[in-house]
Amino acid sequence: MPEFLRLQTPSEALSRLLEALPAEARLGSEDLPTAEALGRILAVDIRAPHALPPFPRSSVDGYAVRAADTFGASASLPAYLSVAGEVLMGTLTTLSLDRGQAALVHTGGMIPAGADAVVMVEDTQVARPDEIEVLKPAAPGQNVLQLGEDVQPGEIVLQRGARLRAQELGGLMALGFTRVEVVRRPRVAILSTGDEVVAPEADPLPGQVRDVNTTTLSALVELGGGEPVFYGILPDRREALEAAARRAHAECDVVLITAGSSVSTRDITSEIIATLGAPGVLAHGVALRPGKPTILAVCSGKPVIGLPGNPVSALVVAGLFVTPLLRRLLGVQAPRLIPRVTARLVTNIPSESGREDYVPVRVTGTEGDYTAEPVFGKSNLIFTLVRADGLVRVPAEANGLPAGIIVEVLLF
Amino acid sequence: MPEFLRLQTPSEALSRLLEALPAEARLGSEDLPTAEALGRILAVDIRAPHALPPFPRSSVDGYAVRAADTFGASASLPAYLSVAGEVLMGTLTTLSLDRGQAALVHTGGMIPAGADAVVMVEDTQVARPDEIEVLKPAAPGQNVLQLGEDVQPGEIVLQRGARLRAQELGGLMALGFTRVEVVRRPRVAILSTGDEVVAPEADPLPGQVRDVNTTTLSALVELGGGEPVFYGILPDRREALEAAARRAHAECDVVLITAGSSVSTRDITSEIIATLGAPGVLAHGVALRPGKPTILAVCSGKPVIGLPGNPVSALVVAGLFVTPLLRRLLGVQAPRLIPRVTARLVTNIPSESGREDYVPVRVTGTEGDYTAEPVFGKSNLIFTLVRADGLVRVPAEANGLPAGIIVEVLLF
Repeated sequence: MPEFLRLQTPSEALSRLLEALPAEARLGSEDLPTAEALGRILAVDIRAPHALPPFPRSSVDGYAVRAADTFGASASLPAYLSVAGEVLMGTLTTLSLDRGQAALVHTGGMIPAGADAVVMVEDTQVARPDEIEVLKPAAPGQNVLQLGEDVQPGEIVLQRGARLRAQELGGLMALGFTRVEVVRRPRVAILSTGDEVVAPEADPLPGQVRDVNTTTLSALVELGGGEPVFYGILPDRREALEAAARRAHAECDVVLITAGSSVSTRDITSEIIATLGAPGVLAHGVALRPGKPTILAVCSGKPVIGLPGNPVSALVVAGLFVTPLLRRLLGVQAPRLIPRVTARLVTNIPSESGREDYVPVRVTGTEGDYTAEPVFGKSNLIFTLVRADGLVRVPAEANGLPAGIIVEVLLF
Repeated sequence: MPEFLRLQTPSEALSRLLEALPAEARLGSEDLPTAEALGRILAVDIRAPHALPPFPRSSVDGYAVRAADTFGASASLPAYLSVAGEVLMGTLTTLSLDRGQAALVHTGGMIPAGADAVVMVEDTQVARPDEIEVLKPAAPGQNVLQLGEDVQPGEIVLQRGARLRAQELGGLMALGFTRVEVVRRPRVAILSTGDEVVAPEADPLPGQVRDVNTTTLSALVELGGGEPVFYGILPDRREALEAAARRAHAECDVVLITAGSSVSTRDITSEIIATLGAPGVLAHGVALRPGKPTILAVCSGKPVIGLPGNPVSALVVAGLFVTPLLRRLLGVQAPRLIPRVTARLVTNIPSESGREDYVPVRVTGTEGDYTAEPVFGKSNLIFTLVRADGLVRVPAEANGLPAGIIVEVLLF
């Protein structure tokens, strides 16, 4: 389809968008309780104020020993050690082992002075009160978590740009960081346009439909780490749309405009974006279905995206452009691991060469034997996506995908 | 390793746990603004109060026509139609087409009476004011979204148990549901035990460590759709632990106890769980590493899980048992699609037959060429997981995994 050949591919268009952003687009940061920072992006490097573990610890239940005392021990010729005492949990042990001595120690307990290994309780027998038989030799360091084995003092343990998952929050707590400096969430303006669009709480008159895109885009922005800011549903009049776009551009870090349906509104949208600052529109139309009428722009350092009004197109375009854009603004350093499931395609998917297609599919079956069935629907209305679990990408160079092949499903 | 042969596999243990739950463990529901319900689970079936689209709409910019008037039209022999007017967006059009007439219509606009197809504007030419040439025949229904094509009135469009993603929220809004009834989040009690464990804000004395598991489990509970409820760090004394466990069991829907490190505390935990009600402990130890000392129980209808104190073990066990348990309590109906990335393993992973191993790995490289490198660390302390992107499962029947094979990485 020649018209698509003139258009940028989605990855080219995304690259142009990201490259046009100022090199140091900084969002600033805020200080939060660590317990409330799940999913947030770290704004600073974190250095360990002390070692972890903070003292040598046993990794098993057993007896702390001097390894040399157990060399050559076996079930038939055990090493006899006298028990000098028990290491109590949570206290500084004052025990110190001499040659021929052992100390009862629990998992996580402190290794007493003089000891350099722990023999598991299963490898010992109580010979008489205060004496044990060691049935296996212990190597020096065996079952001992050394001081600083996990983290050394002064080490950078988390880097600016890290996404805070459960384990990062746990790591911060282990080092005593009960508050943490995270990147401020980018404010993402959402403008809906269209004379036919009314608010969800309204009772639409004939010819009107309720606004869906504000809700779906808002959800996607939240999932991507942004804060949606609503500018309402705007009529197809240049003055109203321009005033709102200008205000949104001034107040927010990103502007999303879902285009009205008519071609004249789409043109107005692109003209208004052009007035918001240089370099302006970078892509007007992308070799993509759904989502061809996408507009990508950077105006005075801030990204502005015009999305198609069709709800399926708007969500696909937001997933391809807005989500990576938010990662970039947030300074996310983690690799982008895109979770997928693989499934067998049950019907042919037609497509045209030169255009990247994203087809909603429903996944059924059980793990290891998933099948993917395209949810076709010429309407591409919102319930097409409700019936789908994810998208299958048909590459630009392919002429469709045949039934029976294994495809990767990008989960919503 | 014979000791593992006596233990249940993780999937057997999970099945026993889920089967021991009351068939109708209901959490009740709550009414929320739809805009705030992202990720929640629908508590009721949703029926469409009206059709979607609510009127026949054009899917393109063009001219609404009577298809029969265009039959046989071509570039060399166009059909001439007189333009009766324009369908304005968002209004009930009063236009009605007679034979030989067309009406200008925008994407999403209402199809006027008499018309049954839309010719794309690209396939027309303006012949003179109020007259167009149609250069291609239109089939009846072409470029028309029929009334109810997406949703029929009275149709169940969302089922109880559906997880509300961006598109479900959009679908609810399209139908005017600005509030929605969702399943109450299960309250999940978190109890930490261990005389050596102090709160994250404390300055640990020698022999003490800060509590990590409360934070990591809380994050996992939130991600799984539950509400964490904290019962603090409890000393290794039966009375204190039993009183707290009893209170947690009375007040919450699920009880998680991270075991103290010592063998005696682990035994106390299991004894206390046994007193909370029938059927009691279903699995004490699972053929799993890390996570062997896991305790799974159902007591008087409520699940109680004893997790290992080691932070890596606790997170792995929570992922394997707590996450599916929450899905079950929430009544999630969606298929469990477990997102993965596939990667090439760069080093051997040793393991023992008869035990399922989960090994933290770090994923590097770019899409389509990921490599997975095990993050070994005998300590299994929290920063092992900070350095990892996900887990690789070594099946019980395998004797490790060789370098070079393609593995699936379960992302955190």
